[in-house]
Amino acid sequence: MLERFKVPEKDRVYVQEEKMRHVTEEIFKHSGVQSEGARASTDVLMMNDLRGNESHGVSNGLRRYVAEYGEGTLNARPNFKIERETSTTALVDGDGALGTEVGPWAMEMAIEKASKHGMGAVSVHSTGHLAGCGYYAMQAAEADMVGHCMTAGGALQTIPTWGSKPVMGTNPIAYAAPAATMPPFLFDVATTQVANNKIGLSRRTGSTILPGWIATKDGEPILEEVPAPPVGEYHLLHIGGTRENGSHKGFGFAMMNEIICNGFTGLGPGPVTGSRHGGHFFMAYQIEAFTDLAKFKQDMDDLLKFIVAVPPSKGFNRVVYAGLLEAEEEAKRRKEGIPYHREVVEWFESYCAEAGIDCDLR
Amino acid sequence: MLERFKVPEKDRVYVQEEKMRHVTEEIFKHSGVQSEGARASTDVLMMNDLRGNESHGVSNGLRRYVAEYGEGTLNARPNFKIERETSTTALVDGDGALGTEVGPWAMEMAIEKASKHGMGAVSVHSTGHLAGCGYYAMQAAEADMVGHCMTAGGALQTIPTWGSKPVMGTNPIAYAAPAATMPPFLFDVATTQVANNKIGLSRRTGSTILPGWIATKDGEPILEEVPAPPVGEYHLLHIGGTRENGSHKGFGFAMMNEIICNGFTGLGPGPVTGSRHGGHFFMAYQIEAFTDLAKFKQDMDDLLKFIVAVPPSKGFNRVVYAGLLEAEEEAKRRKEGIPYHREVVEWFESYCAEAGIDCDLR
Repeated sequence: MLERFKVPEKDRVYVQEEKMRHVTEEIFKHSGVQSEGARASTDVLMMNDLRGNESHGVSNGLRRYVAEYGEGTLNARPNFKIERETSTTALVDGDGALGTEVGPWAMEMAIEKASKHGMGAVSVHSTGHLAGCGYYAMQAAEADMVGHCMTAGGALQTIPTWGSKPVMGTNPIAYAAPAATMPPFLFDVATTQVANNKIGLSRRTGSTILPGWIATKDGEPILEEVPAPPVGEYHLLHIGGTRENGSHKGFGFAMMNEIICNGFTGLGPGPVTGSRHGGHFFMAYQIEAFTDLAKFKQDMDDLLKFIVAVPPSKGFNRVVYAGLLEAEEEAKRRKEGIPYHREVVEWFESYCAEAGIDCDLR
Repeated sequence: MLERFKVPEKDRVYVQEEKMRHVTEEIFKHSGVQSEGARASTDVLMMNDLRGNESHGVSNGLRRYVAEYGEGTLNARPNFKIERETSTTALVDGDGALGTEVGPWAMEMAIEKASKHGMGAVSVHSTGHLAGCGYYAMQAAEADMVGHCMTAGGALQTIPTWGSKPVMGTNPIAYAAPAATMPPFLFDVATTQVANNKIGLSRRTGSTILPGWIATKDGEPILEEVPAPPVGEYHLLHIGGTRENGSHKGFGFAMMNEIICNGFTGLGPGPVTGSRHGGHFFMAYQIEAFTDLAKFKQDMDDLLKFIVAVPPSKGFNRVVYAGLLEAEEEAKRRKEGIPYHREVVEWFESYCAEAGIDCDLR
């Protein structure tokens, strides 16, 4: 994550992982979620927080999920229904569960199918927020497979190349692959210049938005550095920004995501239905189905070591691959605690006081 | 394709598809390729030329392939060997075939596996040039599936984010999906700002290279508009160009491609082996394994129609999706002929004269 998105030093409260994990689980349970679901959702959010993906951790998420459980837009006691199934695929109705509750379960199913048949893919509809895709792709990598996860949702946020009105959402895509000794490859990105959550994070941290990241409400790319605009006063741009700089490539990846996530679930096109939550796609590739696993992991090590040995260009310290900085951050945060914004910690404390949950975070 | 890459009007010779198809097949056969292989390879190159992807058609390719058959780096009589196989996957040794000969066969195998088991994927090593990935993804779309194809090769061309030395190749990625009545979605891009072939095309057409597309030999992004540098005097940049503009996303997609294409074939990492030709990956998703096919195709129509109905932003005529302009170009070129650079037609004529092949192109 770029420095500009980090919580400013003066506003940080360091919280030990286990403490936040405990409180978060209790908050889920207080919303009516059963132990197993609370544990699953908490694990997704905590991994994001541990790896420095604050935009998909408890800070940005939990408050909203609690509200959604409260107003009944999330189902705290879901029954996942398998609507269609083959040896390698499944279509699942999430029954209004939070994405973080059904997601780990769906990826487990994909992994099981892949372990039996070479590949497995599960598409899921009717859920709440997934909180990024990285966690799920990583489940497969931890099972010595290549993992892939995507989610479409929140359409009508992002301007297509040459267009003046938004069509797609941020349509994130993740892939993960294990290595022998190096931290695994974990690539997890929005198909926009910047994820929408980052705009909110900028608002909170007071950092600016760089040229070419967003467009005006009329779809004109904003080509100077600006403060984060209020919600509803901007649109996103796809990876690349402009056609000359390759925004048709970002737009195409977003379309692929839309077609697979919303198309394979039968939800129908997000921009047309205007549905807030789109479909999710969880996929695992069994490495042994293609090649020797031990050699693959050794090859991964060789590749990843080659990359980190590339001399940096002027003004930079090092070359990294997706997942490396996050693995380092995870190790650091497990030791030193996770730096939350003090307002986040205050929210937890005030929520817990009201709900009668024991809240020992500091 | 951007206007700058098209053959200038004054240099165009329009050739009817059937004429070029016939001559190209004859040239392959003259190199020792059997009828079926010659037909397969020709079909790949002609589809690229018909759809306006000159950079992967006969102009850029055939001369090189003929030389490679001549010097024995391509095998004109390959026996494809299945080295590993499951119900959904296969690993294939291409036995030195041109990629365009083994590619259509490998994608057919993936489609057959997907039609039986929901998904199918075939990885292939030891081949020559694949000539892009779009053709193969489209094979699946034509079989009412979602198609996916990637190829890794020509490593050490592209600067990773924050790096000063090249690591990856252009590592292209393609996806295709069918619609009910609209031209299919066909997304086929290099994970670089611009494909290397386009630099050659720029050299031939005299067009310039835009800011942020390439880097100096020391890895510094060139941020002004420049003429196409000679071979070996530049490096490519990943989609995005700079970290602030998202090059880590382009780099990540390239890595995913590298990991799957070279990792799943056991070839080992391209940047480490320095091998010119990388592995290929062909994959088909059976739509019916996830959802109702007719509804999926209707949803695709609704999505694609929604996109083309988006009002264009200032200075642009229309909004398109990947595959639409190419389908229009194909219809036009089937009628009017394909505009080749006169030097290309002259090469065909002189080659055919020498080889004793009847060459009626004009």
